[in-house]
Amino acid sequence: MQQISDQKTPLSPVRLSESHDALVLLDQTCLPAEEKYLTLKSLPEIHAAIYRLSVRGAPAIGIAAAYAVYLAARYSPAQDYDLLDKDIDDACRYLATARPTAVNLFWALDRMQRCLRNHPQATADRAREILLGEALAIHAEDTAVCRLIGENGLPLLQPGYGILTHCNAGSLATSAYGTALAPIYLGHERGYSFHVFADETRPLLQGARLTAYELQRAGVDVTLICDNMAASVMEKGWIQAVLVGCDRVAANGDTANKIGTSGVAILARYFNIPLYVCAPASTLDFQCPDGQAIHIEERRPEEITELGFSRRMAPSGIQTYNPAFDVTDHRLISAFITEKGVLRPPYEQSLTRLRS
Amino acid sequence: MQQISDQKTPLSPVRLSESHDALVLLDQTCLPAEEKYLTLKSLPEIHAAIYRLSVRGAPAIGIAAAYAVYLAARYSPAQDYDLLDKDIDDACRYLATARPTAVNLFWALDRMQRCLRNHPQATADRAREILLGEALAIHAEDTAVCRLIGENGLPLLQPGYGILTHCNAGSLATSAYGTALAPIYLGHERGYSFHVFADETRPLLQGARLTAYELQRAGVDVTLICDNMAASVMEKGWIQAVLVGCDRVAANGDTANKIGTSGVAILARYFNIPLYVCAPASTLDFQCPDGQAIHIEERRPEEITELGFSRRMAPSGIQTYNPAFDVTDHRLISAFITEKGVLRPPYEQSLTRLRS
Repeated sequence: MQQISDQKTPLSPVRLSESHDALVLLDQTCLPAEEKYLTLKSLPEIHAAIYRLSVRGAPAIGIAAAYAVYLAARYSPAQDYDLLDKDIDDACRYLATARPTAVNLFWALDRMQRCLRNHPQATADRAREILLGEALAIHAEDTAVCRLIGENGLPLLQPGYGILTHCNAGSLATSAYGTALAPIYLGHERGYSFHVFADETRPLLQGARLTAYELQRAGVDVTLICDNMAASVMEKGWIQAVLVGCDRVAANGDTANKIGTSGVAILARYFNIPLYVCAPASTLDFQCPDGQAIHIEERRPEEITELGFSRRMAPSGIQTYNPAFDVTDHRLISAFITEKGVLRPPYEQSLTRLRS
Repeated sequence: MQQISDQKTPLSPVRLSESHDALVLLDQTCLPAEEKYLTLKSLPEIHAAIYRLSVRGAPAIGIAAAYAVYLAARYSPAQDYDLLDKDIDDACRYLATARPTAVNLFWALDRMQRCLRNHPQATADRAREILLGEALAIHAEDTAVCRLIGENGLPLLQPGYGILTHCNAGSLATSAYGTALAPIYLGHERGYSFHVFADETRPLLQGARLTAYELQRAGVDVTLICDNMAASVMEKGWIQAVLVGCDRVAANGDTANKIGTSGVAILARYFNIPLYVCAPASTLDFQCPDGQAIHIEERRPEEITELGFSRRMAPSGIQTYNPAFDVTDHRLISAFITEKGVLRPPYEQSLTRLRS
């Protein structure tokens, strides 16, 4: 394990290489042991990196997908717009199969494709430039959105608050600041002295490996707990707010996020602790009327039974149920913190502010 | 990983060797990979085995402690009753420090010591025989108690039920049948076709390593989930009852059990699923008025951050909070299933049935 406490350079989970010819991903499967970067050019490589969670977090997946579409255009042999449009269409269909739950993936692919189709007169090379510009814009907008989520969320918190978070909706899940961690980082810069409790977030331990890592690296006071300790820290009065990210928000406010979020929301309600969902507009899915309509990804049993470690954690051949996400009932959500402000119930009305 | 599916011999987590000269423990830290038995004679060895959870589960700890007291007497050089009594007193004080939360440890030590003091006229050798008899009786009574808990609990369940359990309160936690798993084993023998969901139970994965293992070995339908998936399986309507064991029950019904139990209880209440605590009378502590008075063991950070695996799961130096147990509010408990029947609220009255 390398020492990381003195490495204060900002984490950059997803970016385009300087020569614009490759996607550079911080391989999050190697954290916290190693800060290793992947340089990927082909779609199958990028698809695999998204599936195995080398890049994860709804906003970061969207950014990676946008760059992937640009790279597909860059490496397409197409000489005219129509052939390029066909290749981009194929690329988008393929990338859309990498993960089913986070809507930002589809949102980014759709936005890249619409951008291309808004310029049907362009030459193939001009179309490539347009796609590059759009991908860079998606990336830059995400940074601005995270900052705004931080600004909008901070007034809901007070100095000294104990804050519970689940999974990782931090710098590593976005371009910068994160969503759920944005108010925490901003408060930290302003001397708020938060005490953050990070659920480790089984099965893949994004809380232990990523949230604990990036908050510790930034000098934020953070305590790692197992998921099943959340009720205990709440009962002790150590938590004044819960902040989580989201992978898809339905029109009624039902929210898909990392498995375990709905349980945390039920506990928070029981202990009268507000739960805030930090949501960029890109995670809203107005096509989805409610949580029932959200497709929940199920993943391999080995994530529960082995986790890449040398020793089995469960009997051979054991049945597992391994959903990657769950849906939190909108009635358990105190507010959505978005780049356009704090949205309160009734969500069927307030969420429409994100449409424009 | 050795194949275990065809090994149908009963699991025997704790017993006295045939020649009565050693405690034989199934080393539960090696499960599910290996069925390895430890043969222990000295108190420091036994103390260490209890602390590191080679034997665990409140009833099994009680049985192990009773045999340890007998072995202390056996190997004591004392030639008369008074010297032996002094050695046993020292042994009990020492063994009592192995783990603070499960009351059965103290209950068994106290019972052994009282038994000795009921025979102040005995020679040292006669006293040794008396202690052997008492330890064997504690063991045999536990088997009978588990069976009765199964019989008393089964009428609360129906064929086809989905049953969630947390941690391991099965054969491996007791002498046989278990407490929380006793109604499940009994129903299984009678063709009830239960679908059991086992929380893996971080940090030490007793659900994954032990409950999933012993139920699979017995041919019970069992599905392993991460702790944070419990809300999802409840929300899907897959769970009709929650069965858990306990480490200490206070006079008002507040119940200390493996960390995470209180969260499961809150979720069960939210989804209107009954939660039953399976409790031998030996886990009742009338000295404890309520959960506030129960001392909760905190354990080493490495249980969360390393778990004995080859790869770190969390950043170096990260703060952790690692309570081994939590307290479930008695208002969240639908009933206690005991060897003396099913006890319903108000518990301050109904639990007194266990005194006699």
